[in-house]
Amino acid sequence: MEQDKLLQLLTKVRGGEVTPEEAVLELKIAPFEDLGYAKVDLHRGIRGGVSEVVYGAGKTTEQVVGILESMRQKGVENILVTRISKETAERIGERMAFEYHEVPKLGVAARDEREMVGKVVVASAGTSDMAVCEEAALTAEILGNKVVRLYDVGVAGLHRLLSHQKTLMTARVVIAVAGMEGALASVVGGLVDCPVIAVPTSVGYGANFGGLSALLSMLNSCASGVSVVNIDNGFGAGFLANRINRMDGLAG
Amino acid sequence: MEQDKLLQLLTKVRGGEVTPEEAVLELKIAPFEDLGYAKVDLHRGIRGGVSEVVYGAGKTTEQVVGILESMRQKGVENILVTRISKETAERIGERMAFEYHEVPKLGVAARDEREMVGKVVVASAGTSDMAVCEEAALTAEILGNKVVRLYDVGVAGLHRLLSHQKTLMTARVVIAVAGMEGALASVVGGLVDCPVIAVPTSVGYGANFGGLSALLSMLNSCASGVSVVNIDNGFGAGFLANRINRMDGLAG
Amino acid sequence: MEQDKLLQLLTKVRGGEVTPEEAVLELKIAPFEDLGYAKVDLHRGIRGGVSEVVYGAGKTTEQVVGILESMRQKGVENILVTRISKETAERIGERMAFEYHEVPKLGVAARDEREMVGKVVVASAGTSDMAVCEEAALTAEILGNKVVRLYDVGVAGLHRLLSHQKTLMTARVVIAVAGMEGALASVVGGLVDCPVIAVPTSVGYGANFGGLSALLSMLNSCASGVSVVNIDNGFGAGFLANRINRMDGLAG
Amino acid sequence: MEQDKLLQLLTKVRGGEVTPEEAVLELKIAPFEDLGYAKVDLHRGIRGGVSEVVYGAGKTTEQVVGILESMRQKGVENILVTRISKETAERIGERMAFEYHEVPKLGVAARDEREMVGKVVVASAGTSDMAVCEEAALTAEILGNKVVRLYDVGVAGLHRLLSHQKTLMTARVVIAVAGMEGALASVVGGLVDCPVIAVPTSVGYGANFGGLSALLSMLNSCASGVSVVNIDNGFGAGFLANRINRMDGLAG
Amino acid sequence: MEQDKLLQLLTKVRGGEVTPEEAVLELKIAPFEDLGYAKVDLHRGIRGGVSEVVYGAGKTTEQVVGILESMRQKGVENILVTRISKETAERIGERMAFEYHEVPKLGVAARDEREMVGKVVVASAGTSDMAVCEEAALTAEILGNKVVRLYDVGVAGLHRLLSHQKTLMTARVVIAVAGMEGALASVVGGLVDCPVIAVPTSVGYGANFGGLSALLSMLNSCASGVSVVNIDNGFGAGFLANRINRMDGLAG
Amino acid sequence: MEQDKLLQLLTKVRGGEVTPEEAVLELKIAPFEDLGYAKVDLHRGIRGGVSEVVYGAGKTTEQVVGILESMRQKGVENILVTRISKETAERIGERMAFEYHEVPKLGVAARDEREMVGKVVVASAGTSDMAVCEEAALTAEILGNKVVRLYDVGVAGLHRLLSHQKTLMTARVVIAVAGMEGALASVVGGLVDCPVIAVPTSVGYGANFGGLSALLSMLNSCASGVSVVNIDNGFGAGFLANRINRMDGLAG
Amino acid sequence: MEQDKLLQLLTKVRGGEVTPEEAVLELKIAPFEDLGYAKVDLHRGIRGGVSEVVYGAGKTTEQVVGILESMRQKGVENILVTRISKETAERIGERMAFEYHEVPKLGVAARDEREMVGKVVVASAGTSDMAVCEEAALTAEILGNKVVRLYDVGVAGLHRLLSHQKTLMTARVVIAVAGMEGALASVVGGLVDCPVIAVPTSVGYGANFGGLSALLSMLNSCASGVSVVNIDNGFGAGFLANRINRMDGLAG
Amino acid sequence: MEQDKLLQLLTKVRGGEVTPEEAVLELKIAPFEDLGYAKVDLHRGIRGGVSEVVYGAGKTTEQVVGILESMRQKGVENILVTRISKETAERIGERMAFEYHEVPKLGVAARDEREMVGKVVVASAGTSDMAVCEEAALTAEILGNKVVRLYDVGVAGLHRLLSHQKTLMTARVVIAVAGMEGALASVVGGLVDCPVIAVPTSVGYGANFGGLSALLSMLNSCASGVSVVNIDNGFGAGFLANRINRMDGLAG
Repeated sequence: MEQDKLLQLLTKVRGGEVTPEEAVLELKIAPFEDLGYAKVDLHRGIRGGVSEVVYGAGKTTEQVVGILESMRQKGVENILVTRISKETAERIGERMAFEYHEVPKLGVAARDEREMVGKVVVASAGTSDMAVCEEAALTAEILGNKVVRLYDVGVAGLHRLLSHQKTLMTARVVIAVAGMEGALASVVGGLVDCPVIAVPTSVGYGANFGGLSALLSMLNSCASGVSVVNIDNGFGAGFLANRINRMDGLAG
Repeated sequence: MEQDKLLQLLTKVRGGEVTPEEAVLELKIAPFEDLGYAKVDLHRGIRGGVSEVVYGAGKTTEQVVGILESMRQKGVENILVTRISKETAERIGERMAFEYHEVPKLGVAARDEREMVGKVVVASAGTSDMAVCEEAALTAEILGNKVVRLYDVGVAGLHRLLSHQKTLMTARVVIAVAGMEGALASVVGGLVDCPVIAVPTSVGYGANFGGLSALLSMLNSCASGVSVVNIDNGFGAGFLANRINRMDGLAG
Repeated sequence: MEQDKLLQLLTKVRGGEVTPEEAVLELKIAPFEDLGYAKVDLHRGIRGGVSEVVYGAGKTTEQVVGILESMRQKGVENILVTRISKETAERIGERMAFEYHEVPKLGVAARDEREMVGKVVVASAGTSDMAVCEEAALTAEILGNKVVRLYDVGVAGLHRLLSHQKTLMTARVVIAVAGMEGALASVVGGLVDCPVIAVPTSVGYGANFGGLSALLSMLNSCASGVSVVNIDNGFGAGFLANRINRMDGLAG
Repeated sequence: MEQDKLLQLLTKVRGGEVTPEEAVLELKIAPFEDLGYAKVDLHRGIRGGVSEVVYGAGKTTEQVVGILESMRQKGVENILVTRISKETAERIGERMAFEYHEVPKLGVAARDEREMVGKVVVASAGTSDMAVCEEAALTAEILGNKVVRLYDVGVAGLHRLLSHQKTLMTARVVIAVAGMEGALASVVGGLVDCPVIAVPTSVGYGANFGGLSALLSMLNSCASGVSVVNIDNGFGAGFLANRINRMDGLAG
Repeated sequence: MEQDKLLQLLTKVRGGEVTPEEAVLELKIAPFEDLGYAKVDLHRGIRGGVSEVVYGAGKTTEQVVGILESMRQKGVENILVTRISKETAERIGERMAFEYHEVPKLGVAARDEREMVGKVVVASAGTSDMAVCEEAALTAEILGNKVVRLYDVGVAGLHRLLSHQKTLMTARVVIAVAGMEGALASVVGGLVDCPVIAVPTSVGYGANFGGLSALLSMLNSCASGVSVVNIDNGFGAGFLANRINRMDGLAG
Repeated sequence: MEQDKLLQLLTKVRGGEVTPEEAVLELKIAPFEDLGYAKVDLHRGIRGGVSEVVYGAGKTTEQVVGILESMRQKGVENILVTRISKETAERIGERMAFEYHEVPKLGVAARDEREMVGKVVVASAGTSDMAVCEEAALTAEILGNKVVRLYDVGVAGLHRLLSHQKTLMTARVVIAVAGMEGALASVVGGLVDCPVIAVPTSVGYGANFGGLSALLSMLNSCASGVSVVNIDNGFGAGFLANRINRMDGLAG
Repeated sequence: MEQDKLLQLLTKVRGGEVTPEEAVLELKIAPFEDLGYAKVDLHRGIRGGVSEVVYGAGKTTEQVVGILESMRQKGVENILVTRISKETAERIGERMAFEYHEVPKLGVAARDEREMVGKVVVASAGTSDMAVCEEAALTAEILGNKVVRLYDVGVAGLHRLLSHQKTLMTARVVIAVAGMEGALASVVGGLVDCPVIAVPTSVGYGANFGGLSALLSMLNSCASGVSVVNIDNGFGAGFLANRINRMDGLAG
Repeated sequence: MEQDKLLQLLTKVRGGEVTPEEAVLELKIAPFEDLGYAKVDLHRGIRGGVSEVVYGAGKTTEQVVGILESMRQKGVENILVTRISKETAERIGERMAFEYHEVPKLGVAARDEREMVGKVVVASAGTSDMAVCEEAALTAEILGNKVVRLYDVGVAGLHRLLSHQKTLMTARVVIAVAGMEGALASVVGGLVDCPVIAVPTSVGYGANFGGLSALLSMLNSCASGVSVVNIDNGFGAGFLANRINRMDGLAG
């Protein structure tokens, strides 16, 4: 039941047109969700600084364009669109301001100006993990987080990672992206004191079984403070990093 | 190279006993780690409010007691000990102040007085998930976090969960614990704006395959802002929740 | 033994041409199935309102066309053909009346006029599950069931689902279609009192392992009254929904 | 918000003590679920003939007894308790009327007198599936369904199954219980025109992988009209069979 | 329909009491299986030399004893009973002549005197596979086959196997039993020209995953002429070996 | 050591040119295999009636043609070539007499005239299993076995299978080919007294996991006398059927 | 054919008692393996310094004692016995000199005096991996290798590992033992230039799936020079380390 | 901290500009790794004879060319590039001397002249494993090892393998490459006394599950002295073989 309809109903109760008993009945079966819907959306926009997100995979170009146009008409800004092809991006670009990144297949419509805050570090094991890394990094940036990229710092050449220890230790959140054996998450988890979001990737072959090796490795991390998102889910890591990075202080 | 040895070396450089070139050589091969060790520990204690943790599984009672006594002698307080039997707990209790919780098989030695801050909500799908929930909740409490328990709020009876919506929406972190189909994480993830740590449990039978069903379910959550720890890893969730809950505000 | 041959045999028994003992012998080895075949078919047509179904996958266009022509010659109507390409559909359309639906790759030859009865609700978690949903919905419709579609009501935005609670609660059967974590089945199962048929889909990526995550999630549903069909098996769900929707009342 | 509190609020609106606007505010945040809870329960009791169910696994004897006593005090009858030991059953028996079945480890407290309706056939492949079969059969019986048991009719001796064809063909629902290769579900599915609920069991060894073989077999059944519940989930099958068996006729 | 009832029916047809049309109707729904049942059993006894087999796992001692007594009363001899404990065997022994073998947990009631024919070779990779081997070997022997045992001839010490090449090459059937990597089946398959029945065992640890490694290895054997039975299924291999060994010559 | 070289060596021993001790030394390290190779081949040709087989998958057209030409030069006839494309087949056809079957992608070079003996029945669950069935059937035929094809006799329509019971019961070997739930093997296994070779196929979708469902189903068959080959391995089944069908009688 | 029998045969050829042609025939079918057996054994003893090994798991105490006594009578020394209980060890100790290690359940009979050579480093991630580590370390020591133990140097506390960098870099072989995420192998592999043998252990819980996580992690190691043995196979690692450590130099 | 910066710091300490205490502080946080990097690289070049390796998979042609040009400018020779297409190889060839091998998709830039030492045997089960074999063999050759290829010596035709026993027994390292059932590793492991590196390949179909069958088989090898690398990881095997082959003698 939407807010104005509820108000109408209650006004009728006050006016005696509807008895309290009748109102109880109507309220019991009324769809409370529309209230919830509006509330949640506003709340989200205000508290989390998160704009709308459109998951492009499995949607036609027409569907994606349609959703974006509808959002734009309602004045929504900074709409993140993930996993879309260059062609879809170009089609969107014909209708509205659209910034597209080809490697992670991710774009943002009507990007707004917002202050970049905090520090999210995206560390990756190898160059082949780039697409997932960039999905994470750009998601975080579009949502207004300062991002530092530490790419190709896999554990087989530990010096590469250790040379950036200072950067890691001053991060508010670290996103550790790795395929193959996924050991990066544990090593980073042992070095830092902030939350670590581990992203297993499907990079590798043979017994990596499409990312299973990195996934299991990260879930079993002997380092505390590490949690894991789905294989190749750069967006999810970037989104969660934004939530954590923007945490208020306890006193505030 | 430990700090005092490093100081000796550098004093010798100043005194001319050792040339800078010789010192470079020595430093190159010096075990830098001992410095790192001390630093990390202090840092951890100061910043994260995290005391030492002893993982009891796979250790003999003798080993656990030995480690704890050694720590106590160095004055360490608030030492969390996970996954130990009642017998081991009693043996520890004969030597030092030890608080033991039987359901999650978890104890704390020399628990300190610390201010309880923030709000961590631990929500669980069913009563059978109790042991994992309590491991999470007590870990968070021992590390100094206020914890609200919402148990038995599984999604098959949605009203149970929705009646606590206010509690959920004012949490700084939510730990969602569920076995079987693990749907709780997605539903909670859709209701709140704070980070959600999902803990799959091995509760269930048949095609739950020891927690695999809940694990996969949570990793594939359609709700953003959810990350996952290992099956039954209540400790890990409580530890991470502490890290997130204690985040400084961006301005601070 | 076909019915007329059996009649011949028994007439011979009556006429004394064949002794009962000889007939026993012949009947023992006679292929009883052809009788069964005819019987079952008639029975099916009368009781279940189910026409013939041709599973198109793995059959050549020639084979599908051949089977349909043979059926049409015998006067069969309302023949459902699943999982065929647009090309095959066009080839069929050149020979007989054929209605084709591109999204679920499903068609119906010689669709009959039949009363649409009951109420089957098809609820889906996301737009990407559309093809499976439509396979279920159209199958149910072609078999003569009224279908209500509730698409994109995934549990991460619970209000979307809850706003349709009335529709759900008045359904005779609900088909819950979901990929990723498949939580929709449990939540719907907790809301309704009618049978719920859960259809896991292969929609998702990474640790969804081709639909395994949704499948396991649905099999482990904590809600009672939920059963599961194969991954992406929209047809099976629609077919079963028809059977349940058309149940006679207990009194007759 | 419970019903009487809602009535109080609305009476205050009518009396002018509370403005409609204030009531809107209160209703927005009010826990709507308690209404839902009451409603759902009543609805369930009236429409589905289903009493309360207590899942005993993972609960202590104390917890089970506590829940039952609380329910009995509220006058609830016919409470099904699944997966409890003989000891727990005896403890319950000391407090209230309790009927216990040892093979399926299932009991019923305060069983009521109800008319047994319809026909649910429980067919099983072998004697080793007995516990799961009885969990299904007794669940259905306690909920008020006439049950016919066809045990040990596995497909390796087809004549055993076929000799009961008439029983099968007059069922309103068939529950097919099988371990090992689980072929019973497909064969039964091909023989009947009513819904078939397949229950894979963990009976077998080696490559049955705890019931996986029967589960996959049943999910891939080439027979239409078959759906599947969790491995060894006799209760779920009996519960769902009750729902289907008690379907009203379309005209009614 | 049993044979005498069928005769009665046909006599009535001859006598004019029942019309052929009525008889057709009755025969259509008559349970044909009981005829089949008798026939199959006799046939089996005559052609395959196979007596009854009772699978003991999952049956109570009472059930096993009951079945055996019932069979004995009907004069059945040479009844194989698999997977029973020593206790059950002793209980059976109190009632009838019973020969029990403790290692494979297999016994035979009322063993008959029969000519031992052909040659079945049972080859095993290691001593730990003994129980499965003996289940296979004794099954074959009880069914009347000459068995040669080649134990501990694993491929890591090829000379052990090759020294028995002559024995292998004169076998009519070879049963190759192996756990761990299961390579024995391929090597034996390459040496002989007769059918090879491969039995993977659960012997091993770690990545043998309960026999999966040997199972997959044997299914993927590069040697032709090899087929596989379930993990640890010695009985199945012995039973099948009997069937193959007793094949008539093509001319006969 | 090839036969003529061995003869030379032994002649030298007789002639005193080489002492027995020296010969022992030479024989110890001599490659005995070339003898073995020749022997095995002859033996195979004589006893099993099996010609050479070339597994085409993963070989270039050049390699396949090369192998065949080399064999033809040595006078080998009836060479079976499996899993080759039409193109490769045409290339072979330019060089030698070659009969190609497109559905199973199988051909035979220089097919000989041989008496067709025995009876191998190839039964399949559905039309989609055709390619695997034909690989099995043609392999058996090319090796000289009479083959009866019973296609599309899946268990969901039991009458189709039962109408061919006589054909099945007079077979010397049955090859049961099925995808999806693979129940055909168990049902056939229960009907016949001869060895049954089960071939799981990858036909199906979703939870068939590339043939795993049928494979596990067949391995767990409750019918005795059934053994299994690799998924889609029609050749292996045909080859083994030939071995079994051609078994000599025990007396002969 | 054993050596003396071969000599007899060849002497008969020289003496003219047997023609070369007859000898060729006999040699073709002679079991060459017994020669091979003796040769291999001697060779092994001389070159690899490896004594006999008895794998105790799955053998009865009687069998183990029997094998050892037989070996001792032939004068074999330094016999390694793996995976035996303390009871078995005590029983052996009553018959012969026997050194038993309880943690890895491993013993050595008639241990010889041999020079300890080279350097094998056994590094482990945690204290819970101790049993596997000691199986590896003691195996290597008993075979005559100097072993350095670096225990509890898991990657979550990198300083612990790095402080032993010098020890690692001077090893000839490193055995890296780790459960959980198994990252140790990759990190060690990146630090050293010698062969690394990775041993995954089953230590952990939940998604470690009995060692699968560490196994996959190690197989997918991004570090070159790492190979893997079975889960918990400390013996295999120690045995292989011995082979590598004892490699001759290329010039030698 | 790079070496010159360290020297500057220490010079300042000597000059009194920086106190030892200040230097301690700076050194604690200084990135020590750049030193380490240089050291490790030199060390590697000197001791292991290993040049740089570029893993081509997942890198664009531009990235591969860029890396190679940068290396060449620093004078690096003998750079191995794995898993690149012919097109990429041709592009590289336009810029620098580049030797490309099409079957294993592997090339070497600026190949140097180096003495070929030792003996590495690469044995493979079948011709289809060729690409993986050649990746292993060429990797070993480019790194300066003499390689003997024994292809198509699968265990189903044991004579092929045994005829090369001498070659095998004189190897310093054997690389055993096999798909399907992977039995080659165990058989070879039983024949030789040197380290065996097993490479499972994805060659096969059906229940080989992309190489899983060979992988598990090899991990469970009953032969000691065998270790395993990732599925299809020919490079890893060749690289490790180089390390082992080049081991110094113990005295040296």
